[in-house]
Amino acid sequence: MPAYKAPLRDIRFLLNEVFDYPAHYAGLPNGKDADPDTVNAILDECAKYAEEVLSPLNLSGDEEGCRFEAGKVTTPKGFKEAYEQWVAGGWQGLSHPTEYGGQGMPMSLGLMKTEMVGTANWSFGMYPGLSLGAMNTILQHASDELKTAYMPALTEGRWTGTMCLTEPQCGTDLGQVKTRAEPQSDGSYKVTGTKIFISAGEHDMAENIVHVVLARLPDAPAGTRGISLFIIPKFLPAADGSAGEFNHVVCSALEHKMGIKASATAVINFEDSKAWMIAEPNKGLEAMFTFMNTARIGTAIQGVCHAELSFQGALRYAKERRSMRALSGKKEPDKVADAIIHHADVRRMLLTQKAFAEGGRAMIYYAAQFADHMTNGIIEGDQKKYKKWDDKLGFFTPIMKGFLTEMGLEAANQGIQVFGGHGYIKEHGMEQIARDARIATLYEGTTGIQALDLLGRKVLIMTRGGAVREFTALIAKFAVDNMRNAKLRSYATALARYAAEWNVLTMRIMLTARKDRDAVSAASHHFLMYSGYVMMAYFWALQAQIAGNKLVHGGSESKEFYKAKIATARFYFDHLLPRAKGHATSMIKPSKSLTKLPIDSFVFE
Amino acid sequence: MPAYKAPLRDIRFLLNEVFDYPAHYAGLPNGKDADPDTVNAILDECAKYAEEVLSPLNLSGDEEGCRFEAGKVTTPKGFKEAYEQWVAGGWQGLSHPTEYGGQGMPMSLGLMKTEMVGTANWSFGMYPGLSLGAMNTILQHASDELKTAYMPALTEGRWTGTMCLTEPQCGTDLGQVKTRAEPQSDGSYKVTGTKIFISAGEHDMAENIVHVVLARLPDAPAGTRGISLFIIPKFLPAADGSAGEFNHVVCSALEHKMGIKASATAVINFEDSKAWMIAEPNKGLEAMFTFMNTARIGTAIQGVCHAELSFQGALRYAKERRSMRALSGKKEPDKVADAIIHHADVRRMLLTQKAFAEGGRAMIYYAAQFADHMTNGIIEGDQKKYKKWDDKLGFFTPIMKGFLTEMGLEAANQGIQVFGGHGYIKEHGMEQIARDARIATLYEGTTGIQALDLLGRKVLIMTRGGAVREFTALIAKFAVDNMRNAKLRSYATALARYAAEWNVLTMRIMLTARKDRDAVSAASHHFLMYSGYVMMAYFWALQAQIAGNKLVHGGSESKEFYKAKIATARFYFDHLLPRAKGHATSMIKPSKSLTKLPIDSFVFE
Repeated sequence: MPAYKAPLRDIRFLLNEVFDYPAHYAGLPNGKDADPDTVNAILDECAKYAEEVLSPLNLSGDEEGCRFEAGKVTTPKGFKEAYEQWVAGGWQGLSHPTEYGGQGMPMSLGLMKTEMVGTANWSFGMYPGLSLGAMNTILQHASDELKTAYMPALTEGRWTGTMCLTEPQCGTDLGQVKTRAEPQSDGSYKVTGTKIFISAGEHDMAENIVHVVLARLPDAPAGTRGISLFIIPKFLPAADGSAGEFNHVVCSALEHKMGIKASATAVINFEDSKAWMIAEPNKGLEAMFTFMNTARIGTAIQGVCHAELSFQGALRYAKERRSMRALSGKKEPDKVADAIIHHADVRRMLLTQKAFAEGGRAMIYYAAQFADHMTNGIIEGDQKKYKKWDDKLGFFTPIMKGFLTEMGLEAANQGIQVFGGHGYIKEHGMEQIARDARIATLYEGTTGIQALDLLGRKVLIMTRGGAVREFTALIAKFAVDNMRNAKLRSYATALARYAAEWNVLTMRIMLTARKDRDAVSAASHHFLMYSGYVMMAYFWALQAQIAGNKLVHGGSESKEFYKAKIATARFYFDHLLPRAKGHATSMIKPSKSLTKLPIDSFVFE
Repeated sequence: MPAYKAPLRDIRFLLNEVFDYPAHYAGLPNGKDADPDTVNAILDECAKYAEEVLSPLNLSGDEEGCRFEAGKVTTPKGFKEAYEQWVAGGWQGLSHPTEYGGQGMPMSLGLMKTEMVGTANWSFGMYPGLSLGAMNTILQHASDELKTAYMPALTEGRWTGTMCLTEPQCGTDLGQVKTRAEPQSDGSYKVTGTKIFISAGEHDMAENIVHVVLARLPDAPAGTRGISLFIIPKFLPAADGSAGEFNHVVCSALEHKMGIKASATAVINFEDSKAWMIAEPNKGLEAMFTFMNTARIGTAIQGVCHAELSFQGALRYAKERRSMRALSGKKEPDKVADAIIHHADVRRMLLTQKAFAEGGRAMIYYAAQFADHMTNGIIEGDQKKYKKWDDKLGFFTPIMKGFLTEMGLEAANQGIQVFGGHGYIKEHGMEQIARDARIATLYEGTTGIQALDLLGRKVLIMTRGGAVREFTALIAKFAVDNMRNAKLRSYATALARYAAEWNVLTMRIMLTARKDRDAVSAASHHFLMYSGYVMMAYFWALQAQIAGNKLVHGGSESKEFYKAKIATARFYFDHLLPRAKGHATSMIKPSKSLTKLPIDSFVFE
């Protein structure tokens, strides 16, 4: 397993030189404490924890996995201790309100933390990650009484949380949820049902687990309009705030998964478990989805994490492993063969990984500023502010989640490829990265669901193309501003063309969809991938522009760092962006290419 | 794990209606016995064996894996018995000479067998597959005495064989091989060295294992010109033809791999093991590579196998699993939700799998006819004939091996995607297919090596573009012949354009490479993928043409089958072939996009 080294240089380049986070934080109501020195200190500490505590447990955690015995789950060796350090370090509450014991920092700083933790050990990061989901939902929707009962222990990390949505018969289609909640005379509920795929659903690292659960009231209407949201602790909170009486929340099995094996994926049975409703009756799904955009950024980060980690491993190997001679002549004549990094095709693979990791990071750090405003809207109880920024973020999240997780998987596979046959062997850890990365395109809405959310909901229904117009205006401005700059002209030209094409394609699909409702579903995948490639192109051009300026006027990083940025931008435009052409062609093909074949004709027998 | 159902309809469509195998076999010196009735009977028997014996062991084989204890390897439960049936059925010698106990059938029939066995259980297929490699090499290069000693037991399957190339310090770069062979007074050798990644290197299914080994004579020149080829049995053949004295061939470990876990990948130590040279001294590499094209077709088939198996699993699930409603309106109003096959994007994934499985199969069945002529050249000792057909085949193998294994991996990943989160769980077997498929782009030469072999060796050096001209002439002929056919015009137009572009791109790279030797390596990946997409497009258009004719004039298959062929061809041209555009753009970008960045600037720290 590659030892993880936090890419602090790149993170600081984005924070300070590309997106001006110091100014952004200074303008946030909760940004006063996030001054550059504090931010740097937090990033350094987090990097140290990720590198020294979590990274060494990544390979062993995969080998050992979680064990399930008689309802108890044991996490791999070292996880419990690492989690204790997590709690002691106050990491869980970094971006949560001080009134519950958090540090009140902006949400974006929490995302940087998520990235470092997740790259070092994604399985470990799932436990605190799911807690964040539960904390956010409770914070936004629960009564003050419930907040007081649960938020302090969750913010401290003494308790962890989960999100219980999926049932055996339904994942995406939550209207099929069957878990039932019976009202009790004291205002509480008794919940019975089975939930599957519950990450961090049961483990040995915290004294209590707080489940946020979708269930149905007895008189609820069918479908999605009859789902309510409940809080169900494994142990009922005692008067002194500790975990009290057992609440009949039973883990009946752990799933055997392809990867993230140190993350416990539980089947959870609620057996007349005591529950409290949060949010309005039958409005559970809307409440659950309040933080959907934030949760989806959290998963989008996984694409960056696995691209980064696989790149780090592949780069080290490519400098050490010697095989054949470069086509352009011996590069290391005194050695038995040239290091494989001298082969252009190996460089293509490494640069692909680097371009996806750093390009994806730039996309996320850009959108994270919207997330800061959005969460402040929630904290301040300002629905209008929340809505405005959540809508803005809403265009980015399906692109980031859908595109970056697919690219993360590709990058992880490229890392295996750089290792050749050795990439297929467990001891190097490269194959684990691909197995761990594989989940990211599935959970929090599959890539197909992201594609429909983007094209159907965010672009066509909600904004009638406005979201694309707004973002492409940014691209077009960059193009106009830099068209006369010899070093940026080729980027500007390409971007101007793609910005125009993106709008044209959007309009064409919108017109077609009026007559053919399958057109949206048929185009959605290609539209998502096209959007991802073009959006990332903008952020690579932007990085090239800034790096070019810093090379001339001086910046905080080395000249080599800036030159590498410029070279990677060039590579991205030459070798990855052209893939958008295929998607542009395919997205406007008639939907009957997909829908015409009768179901029974698919047969293989 | 999806139960495997051999796609006999598709196989027979290709054999009888697309490529006229009856005429092909009738024209082969060793094709007399391969009359249609016999071929059908063999395919039926093989399908039955694959479906009933091998398929049920696929998931359990992965779960159990191979065990290693004190130098002994135990294959998973049921493997030994399945192998006994393999031997009893005479499957090992299907395409090998009758003088050694084989059935003397054409090589192509062996490839169809490989496909069915490999789809049902790729790990199992590795054992007889490696034997084939050893048998082919011995047959072509060993003395009559060695052939008499080894071929009968290998042809029967009583003994198995391996190919021992890789060492810890080298895989692709075999010039670095260190294993040493000391000549003995009796004309034999003593070989000492360590070989890694030896598939079927040690197991409990056969009484002896015959290793074909690359090693270096004491006075051998450095590099690839000093490698010789040896035969080293685990047990020395006794006078009665049985396995005799132990030959100090020691398995010291098994690798822990991402997939194909029921295939034993051994570290093999030769400890002064008695060996016999085959082929000329220092000409071992050429001899080893005689059958490289055949071996690479054998691996290319893996792409088809895993696309097919994953498609079968995903298709069943997509018809059963219900989620949401189709965008164009309820399809199954009496059900809680529509089956997911009604969603256009799910169809895109299923059709992608189908297109790659059936398109890849067509490519392989086409090239398999060249393999028949080529192996007949060897059997007849006709070097000229061998060379002619091996050269013809040589253009197809890197495309098939490089492109189809990448597409097999993509198809396997699409299969997971159709299952959503359930695809990530071991019990459904979909994730195993992706893990098993993952090796295919690595062994028998990585995709990068195939790309260099194709562009550098086969296209530029050996034929100066002639290989592309020859194949595109076939495409152009199809285009001209069908330009006036309303049902085929769109295919013909697209193919004509791609045929021309393929030649133009080849010429451009050839010219650039005169000044810039990195241009070949920089373009190679894109050239390979482009070639794969365009070649497969031709075979889809061809299938659409035949299917269209059969719909009008009647054929052996159902109308639904032919309609599905036509719909899949349409899908391929609309949704997969456009990817070639991106590759066409990228392959002619300056090589400095890849080579310019100094090595030290890649750093992530």
